[in-house]
Amino acid sequence: MSCTFKTTRRVEFHETDMAGIVHFANFYKYMEQAEHEYFRSLGLTIVDKQADGSIIGWPRVSAQCSFESPACYGDLLEIRLNIERIGVKSLTIEYDLWRDETKIARGRMKTVCCQFTHGSPMQSIAIPERMLLKFEASMDQDE
Amino acid sequence: MSCTFKTTRRVEFHETDMAGIVHFANFYKYMEQAEHEYFRSLGLTIVDKQADGSIIGWPRVSAQCSFESPACYGDLLEIRLNIERIGVKSLTIEYDLWRDETKIARGRMKTVCCQFTHGSPMQSIAIPERMLLKFEASMDQDE
Amino acid sequence: MSCTFKTTRRVEFHETDMAGIVHFANFYKYMEQAEHEYFRSLGLTIVDKQADGSIIGWPRVSAQCSFESPACYGDLLEIRLNIERIGVKSLTIEYDLWRDETKIARGRMKTVCCQFTHGSPMQSIAIPERMLLKFEASMDQDE
Amino acid sequence: MSCTFKTTRRVEFHETDMAGIVHFANFYKYMEQAEHEYFRSLGLTIVDKQADGSIIGWPRVSAQCSFESPACYGDLLEIRLNIERIGVKSLTIEYDLWRDETKIARGRMKTVCCQFTHGSPMQSIAIPERMLLKFEASMDQDE
Repeated sequence: MSCTFKTTRRVEFHETDMAGIVHFANFYKYMEQAEHEYFRSLGLTIVDKQADGSIIGWPRVSAQCSFESPACYGDLLEIRLNIERIGVKSLTIEYDLWRDETKIARGRMKTVCCQFTHGSPMQSIAIPERMLLKFEASMDQDE
Repeated sequence: MSCTFKTTRRVEFHETDMAGIVHFANFYKYMEQAEHEYFRSLGLTIVDKQADGSIIGWPRVSAQCSFESPACYGDLLEIRLNIERIGVKSLTIEYDLWRDETKIARGRMKTVCCQFTHGSPMQSIAIPERMLLKFEASMDQDE
Repeated sequence: MSCTFKTTRRVEFHETDMAGIVHFANFYKYMEQAEHEYFRSLGLTIVDKQADGSIIGWPRVSAQCSFESPACYGDLLEIRLNIERIGVKSLTIEYDLWRDETKIARGRMKTVCCQFTHGSPMQSIAIPERMLLKFEASMDQDE
Repeated sequence: MSCTFKTTRRVEFHETDMAGIVHFANFYKYMEQAEHEYFRSLGLTIVDKQADGSIIGWPRVSAQCSFESPACYGDLLEIRLNIERIGVKSLTIEYDLWRDETKIARGRMKTVCCQFTHGSPMQSIAIPERMLLKFEASMDQDE
């Protein structure tokens, strides 16, 4: 997998379960954290307040993950993120989680760009140009 | 402790940690669930939309819990709730958690009645009369 | 989707996020709860202590979910579970989440039957006969 | 409050609730993270495997927190930790959470040193000398 962005995260105690390993639902939070840090690294935010008071956000369409090796309390995980596809309104991102040379998990999440206006239902919108340019520029740096 | 309301809850797998027992932060969610069910039993809700679009809610001032015996996956817990004090703007509630004859935990949470108007900071308010009457009536039924 | 088992669950306050809806990572906990209740309905448990002190459990291989409509605080969700495939060592289960007539989400999780012996790495095993018979009987009742 | 150790943490999206702020139960996880990083900074761990296979851990006796100002998505919180009391078997630690000059919360947790031997109930023990020396040395550095 090529890698557009990477970050690290240490497994916390409350993320483990009685089997002694990270409970699988937490891997979705790990992927989300990497996604949000990627946005932040581009000067973007996933809760983007507009001048008119509306918010541009990124609700999820789907999320999947395969679990290849367990992660434990205190493990330092590296999360590698790769933009798989930029659609008109959506973003599909792949995630690889590693602990040193051990692959822990691989996931993929599809999100859709939406506008939230107070009192109205959310509306999917084309990804704004200023965001698109940043996503594309970040992919060019990747090889 | 006298008991104004009680409910039950089964411990879920993701609530355990690698020590094999319920992670302590979950007990605060258990107390919150009991509180919300108590409100629901009175025909009230903790997210109460008003005619003017504002919301009356109950943010927490403080929460404490002492952990007397561990709870495990699959345990059926009984959560007993007792109104300790009704202030002008606040509610202090005690909680006892039991598994059969074993006391698991005892907690207390203080919440304050607040009005949230879109675009303004939240404002603490006197507990509305219609709510007060229901809280008080529920205490009379208790012996 | 045919339905082998179903259960309900009310959305709790702490499961919502600042977008005002259930945070997507919680849907994996909802699917897990349904799975565990299904096991319990068959007289089985996903943490099955054996006479020799080892434990038979069901770690996840993969989990996916697509999110079709948001769920909100207080919503009563119905979770319908369908056994998609019983392998020699694995179980693949589909989940549909509904609020009344509204489809909220559809997911699928694959788990593998494993034996945990204290001090040894976990070992995948063939699903024990006594469990297989119960899974199969529950599918026959479904139409 | 004097300060024995401090760390930072950025508020994650899944930690917010529909009121748009950090759900209060997460503050207990924030305090725990600070506690665990403090242990790590001393070369200690809260899951300490002994030569005989037993584990020395630190279950909680009680935890409390008062919530003074809301925290929001993306906030960078500083968590300051102060050893309030070292007992023979227990540790009482205070926590202050700040966002810049704004006090967010103040908490306190009491934990007890315990030995877990596989197959036996956990046993409270006197805090081992090697740990005591490190806790005390860290307090001397504080003024």
